[in-house]
Amino acid sequence: MKQRTMSTRTISPAVLDAGVVRKSVDTVLEDFLAECQEKSGQVQMTRIVELLAEFMMGGKRIRPVLTVLGWQAAGGEIGMESVVRVAASLEMFHAFALIHDDIMDDSDTRRGRPTVHRVLAGNCRNDRTERFGLGAAVLVGDLAFAWSDQLLHTSNLTPAQSSAVLSLIAEMRTEVMLGQYLDLRATGELTDDVDATLTVNRYKTAKYTIERPLHIGAALAGAGPRTMAACTAYALPLGEAFQLRDDLLGVYGDVQDTGKSRLDDLRAGKNTTLVALALSAGDPAQSARLRALVGDPVLDEAGAEEIRAIFAATGAREAVEHMIDDRYQQAVRALDSAPFTAEAITALKDLAITATRRKS
Amino acid sequence: MKQRTMSTRTISPAVLDAGVVRKSVDTVLEDFLAECQEKSGQVQMTRIVELLAEFMMGGKRIRPVLTVLGWQAAGGEIGMESVVRVAASLEMFHAFALIHDDIMDDSDTRRGRPTVHRVLAGNCRNDRTERFGLGAAVLVGDLAFAWSDQLLHTSNLTPAQSSAVLSLIAEMRTEVMLGQYLDLRATGELTDDVDATLTVNRYKTAKYTIERPLHIGAALAGAGPRTMAACTAYALPLGEAFQLRDDLLGVYGDVQDTGKSRLDDLRAGKNTTLVALALSAGDPAQSARLRALVGDPVLDEAGAEEIRAIFAATGAREAVEHMIDDRYQQAVRALDSAPFTAEAITALKDLAITATRRKS
Repeated sequence: MKQRTMSTRTISPAVLDAGVVRKSVDTVLEDFLAECQEKSGQVQMTRIVELLAEFMMGGKRIRPVLTVLGWQAAGGEIGMESVVRVAASLEMFHAFALIHDDIMDDSDTRRGRPTVHRVLAGNCRNDRTERFGLGAAVLVGDLAFAWSDQLLHTSNLTPAQSSAVLSLIAEMRTEVMLGQYLDLRATGELTDDVDATLTVNRYKTAKYTIERPLHIGAALAGAGPRTMAACTAYALPLGEAFQLRDDLLGVYGDVQDTGKSRLDDLRAGKNTTLVALALSAGDPAQSARLRALVGDPVLDEAGAEEIRAIFAATGAREAVEHMIDDRYQQAVRALDSAPFTAEAITALKDLAITATRRKS
Repeated sequence: MKQRTMSTRTISPAVLDAGVVRKSVDTVLEDFLAECQEKSGQVQMTRIVELLAEFMMGGKRIRPVLTVLGWQAAGGEIGMESVVRVAASLEMFHAFALIHDDIMDDSDTRRGRPTVHRVLAGNCRNDRTERFGLGAAVLVGDLAFAWSDQLLHTSNLTPAQSSAVLSLIAEMRTEVMLGQYLDLRATGELTDDVDATLTVNRYKTAKYTIERPLHIGAALAGAGPRTMAACTAYALPLGEAFQLRDDLLGVYGDVQDTGKSRLDDLRAGKNTTLVALALSAGDPAQSARLRALVGDPVLDEAGAEEIRAIFAATGAREAVEHMIDDRYQQAVRALDSAPFTAEAITALKDLAITATRRKS
């Protein structure tokens, strides 16, 4: 596939900020999807590409931003177009992961819109349309996976970059899928094992969302083991804090900000750290109520309020806020000794605040 | 990931036959999966790897055999280890495709055993176990996809081989997914449009199963456009014939040979060429019966017998046999002018017979 890099050619690291990264990544994605559509010549493909393009609108682009930051942190200066294309490839992979995640969780909404399997099932809900929606959404996810690879392979990487990046991407994929599997196994089987919830968090979020994108960006700049270790020291605590914030937003967030119902996680019976803490601190009556309510597929707002009251009474909500703060501090401290460029350190400090204090 | 090629190092093209290819590919797959398991250190990963290894046992390995044949056809002589590893990567990708295919078709059996989503759902069937089985099977498929890529990237390809093969693999993935999407859309909406069924066939099977594996093998040997075109001239008619045989086996095959129930395709309402031919040749009464029976999720053997009687009475079954034979002849004729090695031509002729006259 012919590469289109014109749109990113004007970026230089000097003017780098998250907004610019988002815009450049979006341009790469739009151009790529337009090419996919053009090449296929199949009417049906148009529908899939449109769906995927709509789905990808409005994401936070945190992984692309971290990829570019990792590259900048490790002193990357030339070859920004390739970095942006690799970053776009990670965003396309993330679209795959989210589409399949929504199928597994049977979620109705994502980013304020119906999930892909719901859109494909159409307005007339019956067994046949639901099955079609499910199967077609599995496929749209698969296509996003295949296309993320295609973006990667058309990134004009040097052999050294390819070799470093491909093995990191292989690790990242296996890690996030293992994390997802652990999460799926834990869903609906509530446990007070806080460590187990943190292990899922580490694989599914901390490594996937923060550590690996930073590593991949740093590897593109030819980073050595010391820089990679510094990425990890910052990324893992921040990533855990990011997921803990996500857990809180799933229960306390404003649907206007988060774009998803604050009943979804509770109805699905997500065994978050918040739930595990409440179960381990609760008295037998509180634990019994939690076990009855969390995972109830028809839980209503009154039930959710009762759960929130138990989270407050057991101190679980406050404990999670403390855990977020501890991890935030740890991430920021790791930057003190990190062999990163000054601009990157400033940006990573800002990002640590956004990632842990966000509302969406 | 460290590459293990010892087991394939003793193969030389001189002793090449399908049995040797199958054995070498299986060894690469077993070693790779053992490494995945070892590296993860997660108990849960063991279960996934075991499942995938069991699932992959007993496949026909037609794509790996064709990859090696394509390489041999184009005069490939050195670097057989890399070719076998790429072939193994295609087989791993095929495991992904089948696992997701079974989810989309809601099939119960594959290769004589329960499908992956059924195994994961366990023996106690209820809404929750079914959902877990479905989600976990989507993930096992995703892992197989990711791992097929990892096998590919550790195949020690030269830059020229990489560049040729990666773009062919990108095409192959998009084609098979598009074919699958067209198939899914057509399922349950019976039509007498024979050409439409042949388009699905071309994307989903002819290109994916026969043409692309041959192309990929030939590209590994540095084949030029003439050789690639000769691969296509042989592969597309043979691939169509292969799928038409599959359609017949889905309705007339012996479950002992095929490993899958001969009610599955009919119950799922697969809009095969066979069905389209019967609908276009049938009188109104026959068409109405077909529309009532094909796609009935609780169709029994008596209903299937009635469908088979209509396939016979309308001449649809015989017409499909003729189509298979025409395409078989066309594939074999294409070999007459193909710039392939003599050994490859002999093997490809044999394969054309096996692929079109098989019982499983």
